[in-house]
Amino acid sequence: MEKIGILTGGGDCPGLNSVIRAIVRKALQNDYEILGIKNGWKGMIEEDIIKLDLDAVSGILHRGGTILHTSRTNPYKKEEDVKKVVANFKKLGLKALIPIGGEDTLGVAAKLYRDFKLPVVGVPKTIDNDISGTDFTFGFDTAVNIAMDCIDRLHTTAESHNRVMVVEVMGRHAGWIALYSGLAGGADAILIPEKPIDKDEVAALIKKRHSRGKSFSVVVVAEGAKMKKGSDIIQSEELDSFGHVKLGGIGQILAKAIENTTGYETRVAVLGHIQRGGSPTAYDRVLGTRYGIKAIELVMENKFGCVVALQGNNIVAIPIEEVLGKIKTVDDAMYNIASTFFG
Amino acid sequence: MEKIGILTGGGDCPGLNSVIRAIVRKALQNDYEILGIKNGWKGMIEEDIIKLDLDAVSGILHRGGTILHTSRTNPYKKEEDVKKVVANFKKLGLKALIPIGGEDTLGVAAKLYRDFKLPVVGVPKTIDNDISGTDFTFGFDTAVNIAMDCIDRLHTTAESHNRVMVVEVMGRHAGWIALYSGLAGGADAILIPEKPIDKDEVAALIKKRHSRGKSFSVVVVAEGAKMKKGSDIIQSEELDSFGHVKLGGIGQILAKAIENTTGYETRVAVLGHIQRGGSPTAYDRVLGTRYGIKAIELVMENKFGCVVALQGNNIVAIPIEEVLGKIKTVDDAMYNIASTFFG
Amino acid sequence: MEKIGILTGGGDCPGLNSVIRAIVRKALQNDYEILGIKNGWKGMIEEDIIKLDLDAVSGILHRGGTILHTSRTNPYKKEEDVKKVVANFKKLGLKALIPIGGEDTLGVAAKLYRDFKLPVVGVPKTIDNDISGTDFTFGFDTAVNIAMDCIDRLHTTAESHNRVMVVEVMGRHAGWIALYSGLAGGADAILIPEKPIDKDEVAALIKKRHSRGKSFSVVVVAEGAKMKKGSDIIQSEELDSFGHVKLGGIGQILAKAIENTTGYETRVAVLGHIQRGGSPTAYDRVLGTRYGIKAIELVMENKFGCVVALQGNNIVAIPIEEVLGKIKTVDDAMYNIASTFFG
Amino acid sequence: MEKIGILTGGGDCPGLNSVIRAIVRKALQNDYEILGIKNGWKGMIEEDIIKLDLDAVSGILHRGGTILHTSRTNPYKKEEDVKKVVANFKKLGLKALIPIGGEDTLGVAAKLYRDFKLPVVGVPKTIDNDISGTDFTFGFDTAVNIAMDCIDRLHTTAESHNRVMVVEVMGRHAGWIALYSGLAGGADAILIPEKPIDKDEVAALIKKRHSRGKSFSVVVVAEGAKMKKGSDIIQSEELDSFGHVKLGGIGQILAKAIENTTGYETRVAVLGHIQRGGSPTAYDRVLGTRYGIKAIELVMENKFGCVVALQGNNIVAIPIEEVLGKIKTVDDAMYNIASTFFG
Repeated sequence: MEKIGILTGGGDCPGLNSVIRAIVRKALQNDYEILGIKNGWKGMIEEDIIKLDLDAVSGILHRGGTILHTSRTNPYKKEEDVKKVVANFKKLGLKALIPIGGEDTLGVAAKLYRDFKLPVVGVPKTIDNDISGTDFTFGFDTAVNIAMDCIDRLHTTAESHNRVMVVEVMGRHAGWIALYSGLAGGADAILIPEKPIDKDEVAALIKKRHSRGKSFSVVVVAEGAKMKKGSDIIQSEELDSFGHVKLGGIGQILAKAIENTTGYETRVAVLGHIQRGGSPTAYDRVLGTRYGIKAIELVMENKFGCVVALQGNNIVAIPIEEVLGKIKTVDDAMYNIASTFFG
Repeated sequence: MEKIGILTGGGDCPGLNSVIRAIVRKALQNDYEILGIKNGWKGMIEEDIIKLDLDAVSGILHRGGTILHTSRTNPYKKEEDVKKVVANFKKLGLKALIPIGGEDTLGVAAKLYRDFKLPVVGVPKTIDNDISGTDFTFGFDTAVNIAMDCIDRLHTTAESHNRVMVVEVMGRHAGWIALYSGLAGGADAILIPEKPIDKDEVAALIKKRHSRGKSFSVVVVAEGAKMKKGSDIIQSEELDSFGHVKLGGIGQILAKAIENTTGYETRVAVLGHIQRGGSPTAYDRVLGTRYGIKAIELVMENKFGCVVALQGNNIVAIPIEEVLGKIKTVDDAMYNIASTFFG
Repeated sequence: MEKIGILTGGGDCPGLNSVIRAIVRKALQNDYEILGIKNGWKGMIEEDIIKLDLDAVSGILHRGGTILHTSRTNPYKKEEDVKKVVANFKKLGLKALIPIGGEDTLGVAAKLYRDFKLPVVGVPKTIDNDISGTDFTFGFDTAVNIAMDCIDRLHTTAESHNRVMVVEVMGRHAGWIALYSGLAGGADAILIPEKPIDKDEVAALIKKRHSRGKSFSVVVVAEGAKMKKGSDIIQSEELDSFGHVKLGGIGQILAKAIENTTGYETRVAVLGHIQRGGSPTAYDRVLGTRYGIKAIELVMENKFGCVVALQGNNIVAIPIEEVLGKIKTVDDAMYNIASTFFG
Repeated sequence: MEKIGILTGGGDCPGLNSVIRAIVRKALQNDYEILGIKNGWKGMIEEDIIKLDLDAVSGILHRGGTILHTSRTNPYKKEEDVKKVVANFKKLGLKALIPIGGEDTLGVAAKLYRDFKLPVVGVPKTIDNDISGTDFTFGFDTAVNIAMDCIDRLHTTAESHNRVMVVEVMGRHAGWIALYSGLAGGADAILIPEKPIDKDEVAALIKKRHSRGKSFSVVVVAEGAKMKKGSDIIQSEELDSFGHVKLGGIGQILAKAIENTTGYETRVAVLGHIQRGGSPTAYDRVLGTRYGIKAIELVMENKFGCVVALQGNNIVAIPIEEVLGKIKTVDDAMYNIASTFFG
């Protein structure tokens, strides 16, 4: 039986297990053996491997996280690690390797394909939905629904207290989660990295609401959002006393600015890690499954150096370089729709 | 101010309120007045109308159902009712009418446009996702997630009792909900109207699972699914003692067949109305909002006789006839993916 | 190390795994070995046993069902089976046995204690909350919350369609789930086994609502509820064409009666098995944990022939006979509170 | 008709609307008129009043927050405000006043009863469950379930990343939410104000887990938890740059301490306001309803100067002073159960 390796790298994401399960099920039906590489590229360096049979992927579809665990290890940071990856690939007798991950993980795959002709098929993964070349990534729909549920909850508190509530959601480089969860949650303003807003604009939107009798507002802000201050762009790069990027940086800055400018009591909620955990939505389980099936089909067709992608309703294969080196930012049309509901 | 009427007809569907809210918000910004017609076409016959201002659509985004209520009244069943609809349209001084509904509701709209040049823009609505011309309809994603959650729950009971669990979901003419919720829920077999299965095939799938050590199975069946029996196709058309179509018809028939054929204890769960109620998912709120925005834009552009539709990632306008008279059935590619996991 | 056996019998129930985990964790800390007996009393007859260590109970707290699986096997139906249970108890060298189950499972334990002085400590389990001697049982709160969520969902459909919705919930002998979920879900009438209602009374309640402008109603009915018909009490004992008790028996009968009497369109939803599946609520996880800890403490104190029970806020031990032979029905005070909201 | 006033003060809490609804429904049946006082004591000072009829409380049972809105206004801070409250009480012709709130709100009620014989019946409200005299308060069960759901979610991330996850939950003075959600969520350590822990103890628990092969841990910490540092007790009183108490104070301090001491990667999640928003659980809807019914019964019996309370399974009346001036801290028995699962 030919062997295929799979690994998951970078941040965890609801739907990863659906990809793994689909690859294993489809592969076994076609008489391949699947080796699961633990902890991303780290397992490929250290040869930390488990065999994935039907039992191993039974009952995992509804579970968040990844049964293969993950790491941010990048073998290209140490020359000897790259060599180990290539050596272990051969030693294990792999026909192909399917890395599931984001910019970093796929970047390694691209280099291995370029430098060593290692037969790779990538599966794009980002909860932020900011990978180029694919319309949507699994995990994003789950994150949006979790954030929306939180926004729904925060509405009742904001309303009961005649208060402005600032909700900080994930999105360091692109505002997809903020835009979709804000639109779905009925946000009165949404701030994203792509569209810096002056605090006076936000304050004006909130005042507009109050002028029509609304005593509360909900503002959604992406963690990577920027604020204009005069001619400057402010972004939270503050470090806390432990040297970490400050928890709720831009959220707190924005809340204080709103409170100062409008005089309305303002509170912050920072959703953080809960957005990436837990059971995936149906959308993400289906998308992850489709990605996995396509990935193994590409391996069976000996099409390497590519990644699977969703374009419209179709799962297609695109060259691996197309997903690298550039962020997919939110499209203006969707932002304009969301802004219809501002204020 | 020009006036635009909107109504919701047919079965309720999560996301209807997001369409209504989007239409009202966008219309008010463009200086239109929106009249809400109550109870579908019935309100147009009886002139049961409310004005929809900002307050009327505040806080409705997360609510299931429709604030305009709905009915299955079809004015074309009585000639005088059609006349009343046309007369009331003029009396109210409407610039346009936006009916939100399925085959029936939009069928009326198509005739009114054909017969009286009544300026209509339709919004397609079906929880079953079986309307032609649009890739997805709002409400479907919510129904799929509810069904998937139920399947997740039933898994623990099936497993604890070493039992086969048959789950009957919505889908009279097409198996979309069964296919997506079954795929997302990890069903061991899925029966849909488009793909009649012999009971022996189902039994074989279940026995295959048992032969590899699994002591339980979950089978998802669309309410309109058909079973082959020898050369015959069986469909549940049984009436109960009150003359209603029997609750859990095909589900019960299938469960009994499985129990008899395999000897495994089998139970049925009929999800029924809970699939269409409650708060919409983010996907459905966003899709409903996009539909609503597009509908009002079409009215502003004086493009009538059309319906909004999702094609790939785009919201487009298509002639109203294109959505009528034919069911959109599940595509083979997706069914084949689901069947990878059978048995 | 002394050995203790545990088994789960009867219908599955959210919270069972929390009991098992608590027993194992506490027992291991006190240097006992825990043997898990599979499939209830069946495993005790057939000696189907697994060792439960820390790993076996890791990650099970949030999972519904029971990792030990369950059955309805009753050894007292065959004399030789009783002998096998007693023989296997000795063969395994057990210090004590902790059966977790309802009337049937604990009835067997009581007889084994009476007939053979088998050292047993029972843990009461019933999703219906109808076991005597304990105020609440785990699983009940989860079932109530699931039913309430469904009632919440059905409200939007009932309202949108100007319809009466009948919701049939679990409760064959007592109306606890109907009473609590109906009260929490804002039901307009609740029918339970303990309080037979004439259909005309139900109709009167619904008409009363309509007379004050409400166009929809939600009626919750326990599956074991009875209806008065003249001087008779009607209960659903109808069998379907397969010899099973009819799905949605009393629910359908009641719905038809309401529709006939009031003239309002009426629909039924039968919640069925989804009420007992899935992840337990915090209340049930905590209660199950407390039960488990107490059970092992009783074993350590050599107090046998008893079951753990919740009385007020305290977990106590009561003689095993006190939970047998009588149903705990709903108290009038709580029913009277619920009836405040009827109509 | 005699008139009764109700108001809600302090932080919002899931279940408030169930209290309001119960009071109104029961009162109307007994021919009282209910006046809703807006924004807590503020509305009593400013005479901001609405009449609460059946329509006003229809459809509010499942909604979080309070339809009467709330504030932290304390009339005893300004002598003239107290006079206004008393004057307005007479002007409105109230028979009695039912304030629903915590220590502050009920403290005002106690003084008004003492100083002016104002006929008050209090309803205790605290999401933290730290009010004396009552076993449980509504809102607490909802908060615990939300926190538990978040902990469940964070588990998958912690596990996938081989990481320690610190979850900061509400509880400034008492650790009820941390204890119950941590117990229900399977926390590996729980830190509460009542039980200061040395960071080395926490680190030891985590190392104990790792030594038995677990690569991740979840630590739950109440926002008011204290840490021992040598002979000192550390509590987060740090202010952020805006003068607010720092978001995630103790959580961040603890996380850094764990990371430094154990060397394991550690992350923080601060649940914040989402714990108090959204739809109440069945437990809280039922408890709130029982409180409301009892409150109106006390008014009908002319029993004033008291508050309703849950003791065991019974709703009783206790003198209002009994709930004031002391915090109800967690009981040792429950803490000991939780600690069974540490490490």
